[in-house]
Amino acid sequence: MKRREFLKTAAIAGAGAIVASCGFNAARKESGNQSGNQSEDLSGNQSGSRPVEAPNINTLPTDAVMRLSFEPYELQLAHTFTVSSNSRKTTPDVQLRIDYGGYTGYGEASMPPYLGHSVDSVCSFLSKVNLEQFHDPFCIEDIIAYVDSLSDGDAPAKAAVDIALHDLVGKIIGQPLYRIWGYDRAKAGDTTFTIGIDSPEVVKVKTLECAGKFNILKVKVGLDNDKEMIETIRSITDLPIAVDANQGWKNKLEALNEILWLHSQGVVMVEQPMPVTMIDDIAWLTERSPIPIFADEAVQRLSDIHAVKGAYSGINIKLMKCTGLLEARKMLTYARAEGMKVMIGCMTETSCAVTAAAHLSPAVDFSDLDGNLLITNDRFEGMVVRQGRMVLPDGPGLGLKVL
Amino acid sequence: MKRREFLKTAAIAGAGAIVASCGFNAARKESGNQSGNQSEDLSGNQSGSRPVEAPNINTLPTDAVMRLSFEPYELQLAHTFTVSSNSRKTTPDVQLRIDYGGYTGYGEASMPPYLGHSVDSVCSFLSKVNLEQFHDPFCIEDIIAYVDSLSDGDAPAKAAVDIALHDLVGKIIGQPLYRIWGYDRAKAGDTTFTIGIDSPEVVKVKTLECAGKFNILKVKVGLDNDKEMIETIRSITDLPIAVDANQGWKNKLEALNEILWLHSQGVVMVEQPMPVTMIDDIAWLTERSPIPIFADEAVQRLSDIHAVKGAYSGINIKLMKCTGLLEARKMLTYARAEGMKVMIGCMTETSCAVTAAAHLSPAVDFSDLDGNLLITNDRFEGMVVRQGRMVLPDGPGLGLKVL
Repeated sequence: MKRREFLKTAAIAGAGAIVASCGFNAARKESGNQSGNQSEDLSGNQSGSRPVEAPNINTLPTDAVMRLSFEPYELQLAHTFTVSSNSRKTTPDVQLRIDYGGYTGYGEASMPPYLGHSVDSVCSFLSKVNLEQFHDPFCIEDIIAYVDSLSDGDAPAKAAVDIALHDLVGKIIGQPLYRIWGYDRAKAGDTTFTIGIDSPEVVKVKTLECAGKFNILKVKVGLDNDKEMIETIRSITDLPIAVDANQGWKNKLEALNEILWLHSQGVVMVEQPMPVTMIDDIAWLTERSPIPIFADEAVQRLSDIHAVKGAYSGINIKLMKCTGLLEARKMLTYARAEGMKVMIGCMTETSCAVTAAAHLSPAVDFSDLDGNLLITNDRFEGMVVRQGRMVLPDGPGLGLKVL
Repeated sequence: MKRREFLKTAAIAGAGAIVASCGFNAARKESGNQSGNQSEDLSGNQSGSRPVEAPNINTLPTDAVMRLSFEPYELQLAHTFTVSSNSRKTTPDVQLRIDYGGYTGYGEASMPPYLGHSVDSVCSFLSKVNLEQFHDPFCIEDIIAYVDSLSDGDAPAKAAVDIALHDLVGKIIGQPLYRIWGYDRAKAGDTTFTIGIDSPEVVKVKTLECAGKFNILKVKVGLDNDKEMIETIRSITDLPIAVDANQGWKNKLEALNEILWLHSQGVVMVEQPMPVTMIDDIAWLTERSPIPIFADEAVQRLSDIHAVKGAYSGINIKLMKCTGLLEARKMLTYARAEGMKVMIGCMTETSCAVTAAAHLSPAVDFSDLDGNLLITNDRFEGMVVRQGRMVLPDGPGLGLKVL
């Protein structure tokens, strides 16, 4: 089947497409007009003639059931992706939807291979999720607590359910998530864009290309060619730079020297400078660093923040690490209460998960949300970048448009 | 003017009624049908013929302005209220409303005199609040940050604005607050009801009266007659009892003995057993207590929780202490992340502020929300208690009905 059909109808005809809780036929029946409606519908509402507006809460069918369906989807990367540990040209991904009372919420699990998740592990987890026991998608606290209770790990699969549930509820309410959460859309701010590690010639070309489109760049450091990378970029542009060391520095004195030099070059923040286990050295570094130090690998979920307080300036929240938006918002609240900075990041993902993260962007210090720009087979249009600034869609829920 | 008219029209004609930002005439013009519409309207929507439903976000007038108005309102107490420090028969209160695009959000500040606020201090603060600078009531984070920035204290006045803003946004969305927040209405649970300190004869009568209506009672302790009170109640009913010592015990060994005895009598929790300053003694007590110890006077706002971690089992969140629902929800998240229990309490208040607090009740361990039951001149119907359980209204926003 065509990918488009999955998105539009949740129909299951081809290999790899899976519906939990026998969703298809029932969903098809409930959602009304499905035949040949190819019009793009910002609301995710499947009835083409229905306007995008919130229903009275009492007009939803009381016997509506949440039906979960999902299918693997391999993300094609625009460029070979290199971090200190590996290189690759694709990212495994699972696309998910929840159908309920004529509304559809979209979600996604992205599984960069170095994080230990796979299409199999995600699909195996999702086939255990039974949403039919819940009669009201608005009971997000209970539903997500149930989903979380099904296993100790599986953060990307849990995030996919969480994102779809938020999208669904936002669509029923008829409001964008950022608005439901009380954030100002105009404050979404800039996103960083990553300049991949490459030869100086290639880096120059990429930097030239990006300098007109973004207001802050990002570079992976912690390899041997850090200075060359930064100097090459600086030969082209004075834009601020964020760096991610991915635990690459092993000695605190060397790390501090690196950071001081990076600061002198207009670098404005550093992610995960040293290995997670070296927390005392990182605390030493944070105390002396002129720029904020963010925990990435050191913080997966809410419960991890406690241990890094005082050692880092801030945390990097990623939906695929933390199980989704509900926990991400709690992490944001907790970190702020501890006086910590917050950034929001992503994996290579479609605009579904990237846009979900972007709805939090008005509330954070840095956004690193370029994952959808790094793939060639996006399925959605959502948050878009204009002159380096993120523009959140103003449709209900995530505000996605199916491509 | 009659109180009713303030609630219905925001008209200003009598002494003591104040409108910030010249709200009345403009509000009257915007809100359409105001003439003689005395029908009760669950939505707070002032146009009598308009159905209770959420609008498309794009149909609200883009030039709508938030207009704040407020007036003093003295709460009449059903019984003389006695705590260890004083007795009284009224509670000063200020009622507030925000009108915007034909919708009205209601808020309230309640000022029990021992907390240092007054009608004058609240009105003085509120007259500094200029909401007209904000064009979108949904930007709650920014609006509340602005309101909070206007002074260091004034928590009740800030709470009044916060409650009205949440009510307003919920009405525009067309959903009850508990639902927007992802909570299950069915989990609102029981509220405690306070048996006032009195002679054994009176306590017996009151207990008999309450035993059929509530599932958990509350008693103020820390005075000389603690045992007499508990034993008198126990001569009538085996219902669980919550106690509030209001910092009444000054010695940790005596406090522990009291708690052990109370526990043996079916007391299930203790609030603020000793003075706030005796935090080491309270930590010692919490470690040894068979029932949870809650911080009340020790925790006003989010920033206070850090200092009581480990010393108390949980915190008592009250809107009039913490500046409102936005901060209350952050406190809930923070306390949970620290593994602490949470209770939600109130002052003597109308059903406006009590119902606002009740929308958080599905997420807490204990609710102490009987403040509206202790007054004789309530202006609203909101959360009601049925067989001891709180029933949240299912109308949009707070779900209040103007009486």
